[in-house]
Order: sequence, then C-alpha cells, then structure tokens
Amino acid sequence: MRTLKLTVAYDGTRFAGWQRQSNGVSIQGLLEQALEQLEGAPVVVHGAGRTDAGVHAAGQVASVRVNFKHDAPTVGRALNARLPPEIRVTAVDEVPTGFHARFIAHEKTYRYQIDAGAVASPLLRRLAWHVDAPLDIAAMDAAAAALSGTHDFAAFRSSGTEVATSIRTLTVSHVRSGRAALPDSDAHPLVVYDVRGNGFLRHMVRAMVGTLVEVGKGKRSASSMEALLSGRSRGLAGPTAPAHGLFLVRVDYGPERE
Amino acid sequence: MRTLKLTVAYDGTRFAGWQRQSNGVSIQGLLEQALEQLEGAPVVVHGAGRTDAGVHAAGQVASVRVNFKHDAPTVGRALNARLPPEIRVTAVDEVPTGFHARFIAHEKTYRYQIDAGAVASPLLRRLAWHVDAPLDIAAMDAAAAALSGTHDFAAFRSSGTEVATSIRTLTVSHVRSGRAALPDSDAHPLVVYDVRGNGFLRHMVRAMVGTLVEVGKGKRSASSMEALLSGRSRGLAGPTAPAHGLFLVRVDYGPERE
Repeated sequence: MRTLKLTVAYDGTRFAGWQRQSNGVSIQGLLEQALEQLEGAPVVVHGAGRTDAGVHAAGQVASVRVNFKHDAPTVGRALNARLPPEIRVTAVDEVPTGFHARFIAHEKTYRYQIDAGAVASPLLRRLAWHVDAPLDIAAMDAAAAALSGTHDFAAFRSSGTEVATSIRTLTVSHVRSGRAALPDSDAHPLVVYDVRGNGFLRHMVRAMVGTLVEVGKGKRSASSMEALLSGRSRGLAGPTAPAHGLFLVRVDYGPERE
Repeated sequence: MRTLKLTVAYDGTRFAGWQRQSNGVSIQGLLEQALEQLEGAPVVVHGAGRTDAGVHAAGQVASVRVNFKHDAPTVGRALNARLPPEIRVTAVDEVPTGFHARFIAHEKTYRYQIDAGAVASPLLRRLAWHVDAPLDIAAMDAAAAALSGTHDFAAFRSSGTEVATSIRTLTVSHVRSGRAALPDSDAHPLVVYDVRGNGFLRHMVRAMVGTLVEVGKGKRSASSMEALLSGRSRGLAGPTAPAHGLFLVRVDYGPERE
C-alpha cells in the first residue's frame, strides 16, 4: 500500500462538517466516496482538523492509504472530477507510510474573519461574521497576545468533550484590521484573527473569538485574559462565534515529517 | 414628493438580474416590494445598471420618488430589515427631484474577476470565472488598452439589442494580476479586468472579457483589437464570459449631479 497526503480547500457552508456521520453530508465522506471509486474498495481518510459544520478550509490536510497506481496529478484530477465544486483537492503528494494527517500534525493555522462594515457585505456573508458594533482592535490584539504561549485552555473548551489534557501552545495569536479585496467601492473593512498552535480543543477558536469580540466592544478588558485562563471554566469566557467566519488555513508537519 | 438615491450591494448568484420580470426574483423587484411597505403604495425604482442574472454589485445606484417622511438612516435600516442578506442597501441619500439613477449617470465602473489558480478556489467559485489555462496578462492588458477611448463597440454588442448608437467611451480599461485576500494558504491568483465608461451595451463587458481571455491564451493578438472594433460584427469577437465573475463596482454622477 501507498500513503497519499491530500491538501483540500472547501466552502463549508452546506456541509455537516469534516467528519463522516450518519445524517448530513460531510467532506470526509465525499472524499472517501471519490477515493473508493478509484480504489474499488473501502478507504478511510484521516483529516488533520475535524472542522465543524459551516467551517471552511483553504489548506486542510488528509491522509489515506490506497493500492491504486495512478500518479499524484492524475489522482488530483480524478478526485476533483468526482467532488462538488465546493470541495477542491489542491495538491496530492506521496508520503512515507507512517504519515497520519492528524496524529503527526505539528501546527495548525486558523483564521477568523469578522465583517466590520456598518452594513454587512452581501459578498462576504458566507465568509465572515458581521459584528454590528465598533471594535477596539488594539484591545482585541492585546487580549489575543495574552492567549499566546502555553496555557490550560479549559475556559475555551466545549462542554462534553473528552480529551486527556486541555493544555495547548499557541505560537501565533494576533488580531488586526484588514480589507476585503472583493470589489466593494471602498474595500470592505474586516477584523482578522490569526491563530497558530500545536492543537485546538473543540470550538476553542470560536470561543476565543467570541471572547475577543467582547473585549473589542469594551465588555471585558484585555488584561482579564489571565484570570479567565486560570479560572478554567467555560462559563467565564464569551459566546462561541459563528462557524462561517472560521477557516483552517494550513497544517504544518515539521521538516522531518514532510 | 422627495427623491432618494440608494446605493446597493448584492450577491447576484440566485437572482434573475436587476430588472423586474414576470418569472424569477429580481433585485429591482425586491427593492420595490420593501419600499412599498414603507410607502403604502406602488413605487418604481430606477437602477443605473441593469445587471444580468448572476452579476454582482458592490455599488449599484438606484433612484426612487416617495412620499414617506422617514429620515435617510431609518430608510436604510428598514429596507435591510426587509431584504434578504444577499442584498444590502449601503447608503441612502436625499437628492434633488431631477436625479434619475440611469439617465444622468456619468460613468460606471465594472470589475471582472478571473480565478487563475491551477485548481479553482471553492471560496471564489461564485465570484470569479475559473480559466483553466495560463494567461498572458501583459498581452491582455495591451488588448484592453486598445479598447479604451471612444469607439463603436458593435463587435461586443449582443444580437437583438436595440440602442440608438453603439458608440461608447471607456476611460479605464486595464488588466492586471491580483491576489484574493481570502485565507488561501498562498493567496489565490486572480486576473482582474477593471473598466470604466460612460455607458455599456448589453453583455459588452462580458464579451470583451471573453475576447481578452482569447488574447491571454494566445488565440488572438493584442494588436487585433483595432480590426475587431472596425469590423463591427459580434461574430468576430470572443465568447461571452460567464456572469458570475462580473461586478458593478460604482456609478459616478459628476460633481454637479450629486
């Protein structure tokens, strides 16, 4: 058998999320169906990030073990011919047998887009959360900076999730203003949160964004992040931001793993 | 009566175009419905550009004569509360009674977005035409420049349209490479055509884009534009590019008209 690494972009709007499930169409399920047509047998695809319903990806990574012999570019074309246009395989690479997209992922990078226009852009409505209030971006960035580093992120963990530890390390956590390059008359204003880390708890990025927006609105201070983290209680953090502003941007495996 | 100028943005994907019609949902029709709820009587909305089905707008302008007394910001909020999220009124301004969005428009600016990635971006699929071939952008821009100025654009006119003259003046006609600011791992490549002029024939921008793409592919030369214009025959130009890459970016009325 050979192992393939697939890089996948998708518009998550109409999907039930990455993970295969009994009801709802998943990205994993559609990829497996397309690969099974090439393999002539069941396959299992492992994704680096199990993105929720409505979350998008520019650079999701998946691994799969197969027997078919088509070369990598042919596999990419064959998969894209079988997938809906909301899902595109952007790269196919041969990798060593030990490669597992999730278990050996080194870092993942997410981006969250907030539409900060006075009126929501209809062209961005699937790709950004419209927040209808002025946001103090400097305060948001100060709060985001306080989340970088190694912390127990239990305060941003969805209830009911079972993981061994809620300690994670964020190497990037940064809020900035941006401009949508869509052809709006006067380039539509965005607030962009970029975060990179060695792992993320379920809904963690969206709970952080919901909390950062409360900082941006002046409802809590940037200096309150330390107490929030040490409190370790989801009830202390802000609401979970909507899925449709979130993108899995890239997954890195470290030089020795590529 | 008072006259209001509405600036309108929309994602044209699911609409039958700007213009009210017997079958299909139009942007004009939805705006009129929303305004009639405020007016309590029928109203007629005039749009600067009668965009085709699937064409988007960032800065369409419409005018309407009404009797209701709500101030401009209230009208904007009331309309957005009644319109679907694909259509947003971004500004409402009081204008002199003589203002008519179409008849007195000075210049209109359109943009056409081509997705030039090796694989189409799923995040751009409603907002850019994916062209699956390398494009010579310098040649396309040379051809675009040859279209600027005052010409008879009959070669780019849809058959069956009845207008007094097909002579128009383009003050901007420029092709450049761009980058989509969407969170693609390595910023997705675009080819962008910007065009501004005192008027456009039906399907004219899309026919010009279809022709410019043939130049980009090397199927025709940049220097062939002059003969194409003087030939005045639609059969000599390239195919009509798809609607979903086209945006009405802005409408200008000249200093004395605002």
